[in-house]
Amino acid sequence: MRLAELSERSGVSTATIKYYLREGLLPPGRQVNATTAEYDDGHLRRLRLVRALIQVGRVPVATAREVLGHVDDDSLGRTIRMGAALWALPQGPEPDEADPSVAGARAEVDLLLRRLGWETSRELAELSPVHRSLVAAVATLNRLGYGWDAERMAPYAELMHATAKLDLDFLETHASEAERVETAVAAAVLCEPVLRALHRLAQEEESARRYGIE
Amino acid sequence: MRLAELSERSGVSTATIKYYLREGLLPPGRQVNATTAEYDDGHLRRLRLVRALIQVGRVPVATAREVLGHVDDDSLGRTIRMGAALWALPQGPEPDEADPSVAGARAEVDLLLRRLGWETSRELAELSPVHRSLVAAVATLNRLGYGWDAERMAPYAELMHATAKLDLDFLETHASEAERVETAVAAAVLCEPVLRALHRLAQEEESARRYGIE
Repeated sequence: MRLAELSERSGVSTATIKYYLREGLLPPGRQVNATTAEYDDGHLRRLRLVRALIQVGRVPVATAREVLGHVDDDSLGRTIRMGAALWALPQGPEPDEADPSVAGARAEVDLLLRRLGWETSRELAELSPVHRSLVAAVATLNRLGYGWDAERMAPYAELMHATAKLDLDFLETHASEAERVETAVAAAVLCEPVLRALHRLAQEEESARRYGIE
Repeated sequence: MRLAELSERSGVSTATIKYYLREGLLPPGRQVNATTAEYDDGHLRRLRLVRALIQVGRVPVATAREVLGHVDDDSLGRTIRMGAALWALPQGPEPDEADPSVAGARAEVDLLLRRLGWETSRELAELSPVHRSLVAAVATLNRLGYGWDAERMAPYAELMHATAKLDLDFLETHASEAERVETAVAAAVLCEPVLRALHRLAQEEESARRYGIE
């Protein structure tokens, strides 16, 4: 398809598409002559992901470029490629090592991972920004006196594991590896608001069932 | 306890405590003479919540005052009181009625709630900002071409319902109604980052189990 059709089908203006092309967020089309390039469904899919990252996720352009670089790096194994793309996304706050709550939080997270048998997460603990943001979030709770220890976290972690299995089952319905990684990145940005809203709605529903609404 | 001890035990400076008192976020202490007031454990607990809202949740002072007004309103039934406090918190984006994806998203959310038998959520649909933020999040996914329909959302909603049951089971371990509502509000601000991090960590763990880490 030509640029005009790519714009029409994606709902993104031609000016914005040209901007994404210049910034290297969208690979160039196949040049058919000096002034015309041809785009395909891969471009349409990529454009969708770029909009998810930039317009919805408010991810800075440089970060989006780094994320997409990992998405496209087919020299990596599946877990590493997906991990690299997801780790490049903006994460929660880092733990503040000057905060005395951090050491306790790290110990509870480690106890949790042992108890759950999440061996890979334990091995990757030093590297993973996700692990660090969990430690930071638990440290904040503990510093404010709302203690969350391994025992309290374990049933939540089990439910989040069931959620992650649904996520990966869905990824596996995509035929190509590239689509799987793209979908994982889009889901990280777009599906979290859905899960958060479902969680809050479930709290309302369950509260009404237990206590009525009078 | 005196102001100095309240500051010491809460880790909040006396200047900040005085600011919270002036802004009506913390109820005044019991005046023992012209220059001295006496504070109790209720003040300590409230201070913890105010810090959670303002320092961690970045909730504006006026919003925090409104949330706390609902927390303290014991004329309300339990579900309504908790709901009013939680609804006053900043929510996700509102649906944009000019967006053609919104009507489809609202229909899928309604189908989901029917299928799950979440009758109260259906009754409150017109009123609840949580319901609106779910519609907005689903509309965004659909507009970008990552369709989430009722069938795809249902297993996630069931897991979020199990999560909400854990939340309420924990609230019920608190003796007083005031503490329950306070804890629900603190959890909405402080526990979401923990859940999000546990979810991402579970994705890493499950991905490594399925595909290895090479």
